[in-house]
Amino acid sequence: MVQAFSEALYLGVDGGGSRCRVRLQDAQGRPLGEGSGGPANIRLGLDVAWDSLMTATQAALAQAGLGQDALGRITAGLGLAGIVTADDTVRVMERATVFGSVAVASDSHTACLGAFAGEDGGIQIIGTGSSGYAIIGGKGHSVGGWGFPLSEKASAAALGRDAIRAALEASDGLAPRTALTDAVMARFGSAAAIVDWSETARPTDYGTFSPLAFDHAALGDPVAVELVQRIAGDCGRFVRHLVAMGAPKVCLAGGVAPHILPWLPQGVTQCLATPRGDALAGALLLARQVASRGDVDA
Amino acid sequence: MVQAFSEALYLGVDGGGSRCRVRLQDAQGRPLGEGSGGPANIRLGLDVAWDSLMTATQAALAQAGLGQDALGRITAGLGLAGIVTADDTVRVMERATVFGSVAVASDSHTACLGAFAGEDGGIQIIGTGSSGYAIIGGKGHSVGGWGFPLSEKASAAALGRDAIRAALEASDGLAPRTALTDAVMARFGSAAAIVDWSETARPTDYGTFSPLAFDHAALGDPVAVELVQRIAGDCGRFVRHLVAMGAPKVCLAGGVAPHILPWLPQGVTQCLATPRGDALAGALLLARQVASRGDVDA
Repeated sequence: MVQAFSEALYLGVDGGGSRCRVRLQDAQGRPLGEGSGGPANIRLGLDVAWDSLMTATQAALAQAGLGQDALGRITAGLGLAGIVTADDTVRVMERATVFGSVAVASDSHTACLGAFAGEDGGIQIIGTGSSGYAIIGGKGHSVGGWGFPLSEKASAAALGRDAIRAALEASDGLAPRTALTDAVMARFGSAAAIVDWSETARPTDYGTFSPLAFDHAALGDPVAVELVQRIAGDCGRFVRHLVAMGAPKVCLAGGVAPHILPWLPQGVTQCLATPRGDALAGALLLARQVASRGDVDA
Repeated sequence: MVQAFSEALYLGVDGGGSRCRVRLQDAQGRPLGEGSGGPANIRLGLDVAWDSLMTATQAALAQAGLGQDALGRITAGLGLAGIVTADDTVRVMERATVFGSVAVASDSHTACLGAFAGEDGGIQIIGTGSSGYAIIGGKGHSVGGWGFPLSEKASAAALGRDAIRAALEASDGLAPRTALTDAVMARFGSAAAIVDWSETARPTDYGTFSPLAFDHAALGDPVAVELVQRIAGDCGRFVRHLVAMGAPKVCLAGGVAPHILPWLPQGVTQCLATPRGDALAGALLLARQVASRGDVDA
């Protein structure tokens, strides 16, 4: 019995749109290895996501000095971007039979679990896109995250797009020219170049203009200030909504989060908490929940 | 001399994003034939646009009882969607050597020429997308029309997208549910179905939700009224800008134009005029301008 218990392994998986990270632990929670792979958003196709996940897992096993035979001893907690429907969960579960047992949730769920160490709370992700999530009474609730261009508010993609829009309106004489709109236009060279670029531009491409907007807002550029205030206002609205739903506190996450803090509307900061753990810690918690309970509310 | 003059032919071409229409006239302006073909927006590729244009032209020649040998007698005025840069004009000119002589302009320019019978004026196109154009002192000035999602304000695509956004926010509890948001959600069945749909949705797909918004706005639905007022406000802003640039009057064009009229902000209606001719009439004017002057400001 003791021998069997000591052989149990736990794998936490944080599968995002640009890369997949995993962390392997023994039964006592000691770290054995980490690994990473390519994108694991299942909207890119389950094959793509699974490839990335297995690449990362093999790296973690190798670091731990373990072979393929260890896979069957693993209880895996998978937090994957793009998990929206119950059907998505089932498809991933069916693919995951290589592991001894498995729990599947969205990456928002595992990020929220990690941030509050399994207790109730909310998380508002402000990165290239935006999405909110709350665990209330142990049960998960998703808010937003419907993708660009339908629910991109409070995101780098929205801020970058709005900065480019402002540059085009300035070039048309419809809106004022400022240092920000000049800087955007200088990156492209001409309005026509923007049109060419926009034909293939992805949300991440729009997002690359968000630092320009933050930098100019810090210097008081009126257009930049207006745009940053708008996404900060949306962020504040989302945070308050998570609290109204029942989340005691909310953690901000994502690359834009640190930059948006000084711009948040009054009263929002009091709703915020510092995360206690990362998304991998949350994914490991998810794995331990399934090991102890045999099910999970995600 | 008289014989040669009577043999001159004029072809007007209105090449849009969904189809290409042409009209053939003799030197006295008598209609000889019309024809239509597929999309002729040069952003779809010049080969595609040219195919559509030649299909339409062949149909018009056949209707006029003329053969291929008539092509060299034609002075063609081409108004094509997607003409943005001087380089675009040159590429089309190089392709158009099949005609005796040719003038190339954007479809906005020919629509504006047609609407004001060659006199100064502005045109604001409110269809799937939106764009403004003014001819002032005989010279053309383009405003907006940079494509979705960068300058889609005051368009069917924007209105439809905003209606879907409102439905998603209502389903998240972030915004009120109304008859409009329920109707949008009923079309899809679920928020997850919207995410699937949005992965391939084009501006025209978003635009199909704009009638739903207008219908509900007419019934006083508060969300629909807000969305329609927003695009009507943007439309009003664009119209006033064209007037401020020097256009004596502005014509509205495009499928959304008739629906937006009752919602325009106060004072905008006084800036509007009824078009005197269509885009084909404008393209024929362009052809006659090049025939008489040998050049054109477009």
